Amino acid sequence: MDNRIGRLAMLLLLEEGERPLPEGWSYCIGKVGAMDEQKVVAAIETAARSNHIIRSNVYRETHALYHAIMEALHGVTRGHFQLGDVLRTVGLRFAIVRGTPYKEASEGEWIAVALYGTIGAPVKGLEHETMGLGINHI
Amino acid sequence: MDNRIGRLAMLLLLEEGERPLPEGWSYCIGKVGAMDEQKVVAAIETAARSNHIIRSNVYRETHALYHAIMEALHGVTRGHFQLGDVLRTVGLRFAIVRGTPYKEASEGEWIAVALYGTIGAPVKGLEHETMGLGINHI
Amino acid sequence: MDNRIGRLAMLLLLEEGERPLPEGWSYCIGKVGAMDEQKVVAAIETAARSNHIIRSNVYRETHALYHAIMEALHGVTRGHFQLGDVLRTVGLRFAIVRGTPYKEASEGEWIAVALYGTIGAPVKGLEHETMGLGINHI
Amino acid sequence: MDNRIGRLAMLLLLEEGERPLPEGWSYCIGKVGAMDEQKVVAAIETAARSNHIIRSNVYRETHALYHAIMEALHGVTRGHFQLGDVLRTVGLRFAIVRGTPYKEASEGEWIAVALYGTIGAPVKGLEHETMGLGINHI
Amino acid sequence: MDNRIGRLAMLLLLEEGERPLPEGWSYCIGKVGAMDEQKVVAAIETAARSNHIIRSNVYRETHALYHAIMEALHGVTRGHFQLGDVLRTVGLRFAIVRGTPYKEASEGEWIAVALYGTIGAPVKGLEHETMGLGINHI
Amino acid sequence: MDNRIGRLAMLLLLEEGERPLPEGWSYCIGKVGAMDEQKVVAAIETAARSNHIIRSNVYRETHALYHAIMEALHGVTRGHFQLGDVLRTVGLRFAIVRGTPYKEASEGEWIAVALYGTIGAPVKGLEHETMGLGINHI
Repeated sequence: MDNRIGRLAMLLLLEEGERPLPEGWSYCIGKVGAMDEQKVVAAIETAARSNHIIRSNVYRETHALYHAIMEALHGVTRGHFQLGDVLRTVGLRFAIVRGTPYKEASEGEWIAVALYGTIGAPVKGLEHETMGLGINHI
Repeated sequence: MDNRIGRLAMLLLLEEGERPLPEGWSYCIGKVGAMDEQKVVAAIETAARSNHIIRSNVYRETHALYHAIMEALHGVTRGHFQLGDVLRTVGLRFAIVRGTPYKEASEGEWIAVALYGTIGAPVKGLEHETMGLGINHI
Repeated sequence: MDNRIGRLAMLLLLEEGERPLPEGWSYCIGKVGAMDEQKVVAAIETAARSNHIIRSNVYRETHALYHAIMEALHGVTRGHFQLGDVLRTVGLRFAIVRGTPYKEASEGEWIAVALYGTIGAPVKGLEHETMGLGINHI
Repeated sequence: MDNRIGRLAMLLLLEEGERPLPEGWSYCIGKVGAMDEQKVVAAIETAARSNHIIRSNVYRETHALYHAIMEALHGVTRGHFQLGDVLRTVGLRFAIVRGTPYKEASEGEWIAVALYGTIGAPVKGLEHETMGLGINHI
Repeated sequence: MDNRIGRLAMLLLLEEGERPLPEGWSYCIGKVGAMDEQKVVAAIETAARSNHIIRSNVYRETHALYHAIMEALHGVTRGHFQLGDVLRTVGLRFAIVRGTPYKEASEGEWIAVALYGTIGAPVKGLEHETMGLGINHI
Repeated sequence: MDNRIGRLAMLLLLEEGERPLPEGWSYCIGKVGAMDEQKVVAAIETAARSNHIIRSNVYRETHALYHAIMEALHGVTRGHFQLGDVLRTVGLRFAIVRGTPYKEASEGEWIAVALYGTIGAPVKGLEHETMGLGINHI
């Protein structure tokens, strides 16, 4: 991997300020708070579409993004792929980056989804940090 | 959370150079490459002990660290908690931070384990980035 | 295994037309579309009961069927045992077959549940095929 | 382990009558019936707080209890961390014990959560027994 | 459930001394220590066969026992279905009970597998208790 | 989905004889018996490469195939993503199909991996059928 797309996505969440992107890359940032995993998935998909990171009418791009989101949620949920069902809630910021991390043109485009925020009981303060990263070819 | 222990652990891996730590905190950094999940766990535990992040002769500290490692590995493995068994290998750097992320003294000490590196087929280049974060009270 | 009960259940879904069954075997076919995993389970259980594949008043038969359904759903959901919670929906046909796949009389009756259809985003066309097969002694 | 906190928690559920506790230990017992995993978690957390097994305003104690509950639920759900979503319900009694199972003072306090009852279809009688045990440092 | 087969299996492990069994029931008790999950499964299966709890030459009985063991191991491993692969070891006693827990003759025989012991790092003392219970129709 | 790539892959395993493929599609068939999940993955990857279903020197194609294999193995293993570790073995035939299941040219190529065979104890005859299907964009 020549251009670290995952590291870039993570730093967009962890550091303040703009970051230069390689030419031809695109990204967006958003936030979502929910006890409902479905809402987290929907918020990220909607942001990716409305910011033209993926093309809405091409299923393979939705498919690639979806699996990257699922993988990032493993890091956030760490063993129980659930939020409200196990009485916890998240407050997350997310970054979606699309680009060409490999030098070889044949490797084409990839997508990274990074999540960072807090997870815990649905009571302010009863929470700790959580993060997740998913990467897929698109 | 007043001092973001997870963010600190991740930035120790993602950014070059030293980072100032709050007073009374400790950390260590290491690396491990393996197709064997057992070796990843062992490398992190050994580093935590030899750098005095945890006390070797106190089981509750080993127990706290162990679960933080398990949680971080969920982010790295994303759904199949295995490496060589499913024919893949990792090259990881890890950061272990022990500190007091909450203002209230009663919240005591916590431990964060961050992992960052690559995961993929056991062939150079057939890999992408991966990351995980686990946090536990200690 | 002398009479392949799982293969038969799958072919009932994949091929058009009637198929001859060994003597003493029974089966039923149905369909269900849902974002709610509970509805998938309920549809299959209801079909099995109303078609007399299992006896409603015998718990061990419900228990055998239930675990066969759970196993088939692993094939359909492939790692996240959820539908709407992770913002996806299924359109499935199912076949339930009860019979004696082994020659030895002591092996008794077994039940196979096969599922085949599509899984994807809750938008027409954003989906691909999925299948699952569960087998249990009854 | 010198004082078996898990065995004690289990016997509080399996045997009738009072049991003597080591000095300084505390426990409570309760029951919950639900198709909703969230309600099971909430019932146990509420009992632990109202019986002063944990301090409500200390997050690390909630965190320790929460993970012990999650671990006990693995024993109850055995592979699908869900109840109503997969069309089943539980009727459980639970015991929460807080104490010092290790001789060394440095090992401090631990918490055990034991669950015992029935799991099955949401129909009276279509059910069998289930149990789970989670243990964590607190 | 009229005769609590699971409770009986657990009490055989948690309490000293003999326990009376309902007429026609059978059971055996054994122990196994291993870092290798395969050895735990093999020890339980071997004990069940050599004590004639199941008939070796009837696959449906092996199948029923196997799934009961798998379910009990969920309680023991609590989320990561592994031992040595995640650098931990178990020392377990196990009880296998075969009987007729339901009044109705049509419910037939069931099998319960209970496990109780310690789990932890492969170092004496770095461990806590663990328990699991699996029940299946046979 | 206009050309059902998953159904085709499964029928290649379930029915004897050749099947016509849409123009531009490719496939291969193979078999593998193993107690070691790694060997199953390796056998499928090797067949895909030596039959030119994927290009060996393009990581994104290996990545697409790998995740399709993982998904198919969920159907085969149904909840415990392990073989020998839980004392069981598989005898599988596999079909890999690459093609264009969607009418729209923008949807491009997809890959399907189907598995069908037996799973059970490492003793001849103590086994039942198992099946899995994984589909990914490539």
